[in-house]
Amino acid sequence: MKFRPITLLTDFGLKDEYVGVMKGVILGLNPKARVIDLSHEVSPGDVRRAAWLLRWSWRYFPKGTIHAAVVDPGVGSRRKILCAAHGGHLFLAPDNGLLSGILSDVRDPKIFEVSNRRYALKPIGRTFQGRDIFAPAAAHLSKGLAPSRLGPRVRRIVRLDSPQPRWEGLRRLKGEVIYLDRFGSAVTNLPVSLIRRLEGKGSLKIRAKGARAHGLQPSYGAVPRGAALAVIGSRGFLEIAINRGSAAKRFGLRVGDKVEATAHRRHL
Amino acid sequence: MKFRPITLLTDFGLKDEYVGVMKGVILGLNPKARVIDLSHEVSPGDVRRAAWLLRWSWRYFPKGTIHAAVVDPGVGSRRKILCAAHGGHLFLAPDNGLLSGILSDVRDPKIFEVSNRRYALKPIGRTFQGRDIFAPAAAHLSKGLAPSRLGPRVRRIVRLDSPQPRWEGLRRLKGEVIYLDRFGSAVTNLPVSLIRRLEGKGSLKIRAKGARAHGLQPSYGAVPRGAALAVIGSRGFLEIAINRGSAAKRFGLRVGDKVEATAHRRHL
Amino acid sequence: MKFRPITLLTDFGLKDEYVGVMKGVILGLNPKARVIDLSHEVSPGDVRRAAWLLRWSWRYFPKGTIHAAVVDPGVGSRRKILCAAHGGHLFLAPDNGLLSGILSDVRDPKIFEVSNRRYALKPIGRTFQGRDIFAPAAAHLSKGLAPSRLGPRVRRIVRLDSPQPRWEGLRRLKGEVIYLDRFGSAVTNLPVSLIRRLEGKGSLKIRAKGARAHGLQPSYGAVPRGAALAVIGSRGFLEIAINRGSAAKRFGLRVGDKVEATAHRRHL
Repeated sequence: MKFRPITLLTDFGLKDEYVGVMKGVILGLNPKARVIDLSHEVSPGDVRRAAWLLRWSWRYFPKGTIHAAVVDPGVGSRRKILCAAHGGHLFLAPDNGLLSGILSDVRDPKIFEVSNRRYALKPIGRTFQGRDIFAPAAAHLSKGLAPSRLGPRVRRIVRLDSPQPRWEGLRRLKGEVIYLDRFGSAVTNLPVSLIRRLEGKGSLKIRAKGARAHGLQPSYGAVPRGAALAVIGSRGFLEIAINRGSAAKRFGLRVGDKVEATAHRRHL
Repeated sequence: MKFRPITLLTDFGLKDEYVGVMKGVILGLNPKARVIDLSHEVSPGDVRRAAWLLRWSWRYFPKGTIHAAVVDPGVGSRRKILCAAHGGHLFLAPDNGLLSGILSDVRDPKIFEVSNRRYALKPIGRTFQGRDIFAPAAAHLSKGLAPSRLGPRVRRIVRLDSPQPRWEGLRRLKGEVIYLDRFGSAVTNLPVSLIRRLEGKGSLKIRAKGARAHGLQPSYGAVPRGAALAVIGSRGFLEIAINRGSAAKRFGLRVGDKVEATAHRRHL
Repeated sequence: MKFRPITLLTDFGLKDEYVGVMKGVILGLNPKARVIDLSHEVSPGDVRRAAWLLRWSWRYFPKGTIHAAVVDPGVGSRRKILCAAHGGHLFLAPDNGLLSGILSDVRDPKIFEVSNRRYALKPIGRTFQGRDIFAPAAAHLSKGLAPSRLGPRVRRIVRLDSPQPRWEGLRRLKGEVIYLDRFGSAVTNLPVSLIRRLEGKGSLKIRAKGARAHGLQPSYGAVPRGAALAVIGSRGFLEIAINRGSAAKRFGLRVGDKVEATAHRRHL
């Protein structure tokens, strides 16, 4: 049988029984299931953070992986639950924008509503559908169920408006902070491709609130301990960081803060 | 061989090596063991919380599962370690009340003392018996060892006094908060069965400290963002919650706080 | 095939995708890999804590286990990545002292540099080598790759200076606090062997900051609730603890604080 591990991404935390119970349901339906935690520490209801996190992760899993993402402040409402097939992976998530980034470049993506009660626990509650719907759907998919069996095709999904980088003239890129990691590094929405283009035009200066960085560093340790730096991080975006420190704390950076990268003519 | 996954529930946290080492011991004895974390973030010594958590979880695992619960402030004392068989599952826990809720309705439950040193690490320490006794016992059980091999039958176990719901007249139920989850929802000891009976008598009002709710909601999102609500939660008990907020924080709710549900005559 | 589970020990935390992505890379290369978390909550860059944690854990895993430890403030710099073979286990870690304690008593240890790009992700980034180098190396080793294939033999590694216990006369041992666990117990660098020797000379008194303990207790619960005690903990070192309380909080104990154990003549 094809190898179909399951990843879990939730805002359930690790203090309660929620994640364990989802795994129990999965193992009850498929004793051979392999389940990997992406994170359960997304802040309650922070769909945007979950969307980034999944977007940066899924490609590192083998084809065939089923990604179940349950950050679902609308649980039990009329919002749909989606199963999308993309790039050889399957994605389960509420229709609240969580998947819109992953599917944004896909023409005519294969998305199905998860509505077939045959593949859910009975009775289906309306407060913990991670257990009642997502876990059993993931388990059935891991055993080879075709996504089309879960429900009808869906043509339109909810999209998160995602902040886009913006050129201001030829030498200035404007973006914003989209994610802060545990080390206090601030990930921006400026992708490596745009940064490289800007770099071709002169020496880089990056700023965000009180943070200033000149040029790109190859790694965090390339500057003295405690110094600020800009780096192309592991996710392919510009990051503002401090060597062995927290840029988030030092500069009070938050998601949504403006970031500016400019190319300055090199004086010969 | 029968599928016998192992769940772990402890107050060990995830900062130290305790949980990893338990898994190492298990894998050393049974390389095919499947181990699932229920939670390791029970507050140190909070047997009561562990007891609720396990009680709400175990049925979602497949028959044959071994649940090892190590919240054990009396580690190394004369307290017994128990292995109970119930409903096709096995339970390992210290004899401190952790299992008493699960076994309270069971007539003549099959409980054994875990005392056979043959199934423990040598030497047995008295400060980390999760490693020295619970983990090896769980591993041996997962390979098919009969619980009766672990030690002699136990007839009486320590019982936690569990707060019971109480009727005050025909239209008033009194209970208390027994659990606060990561979202700040307050789980009460009022089960769905009693709440449904009360509902038959009139329109419901629920209160606890400053929290007030009228009627039951089908899901958290059924009220406006930030509004308080009462709902039958995923565990089958009445919960007091706030849509996308924390009832625990807003109302200062704590375990042990009184909760009152009353049925008011509908005015025709 | 030989059973070769993989343990992970990092300072990545559980809020970001780092740990999940490492597991994705491992499963992509070896779908049968068994991965166990030792801890991901080491404080950012705290190599010393990671070193203790690994030193106390590895022997509890079966022979053949691969321990990947990524607490790596020098990521992307010229520091080497090491693969050491010792006691039937394999260890992957940056060359920053993390392994020096484990290897300190080993004559001519087998250590290789992890530099063969054939066993790394392409391209190798310089900000997240847990994903790009450690995870694929661990996966290949778990499939039976010989460590010598990863790169050339290494003869000298970075050593952490480890605080040594010191005798002051025949009846006084001086050491320090090396680790605080989640329960607030303070682990010292005084091993059971030295403590037993001291015990032979008289009745023990232990002190560290404001903490005082007379004699050794067999378990935490051997003193009244809230009382301080000294105990040989599960790691084989003297610990200062409080029964159902936190010695770290009560006495403000920190890593590096001095500890003194003295043997007092018994008055007959």
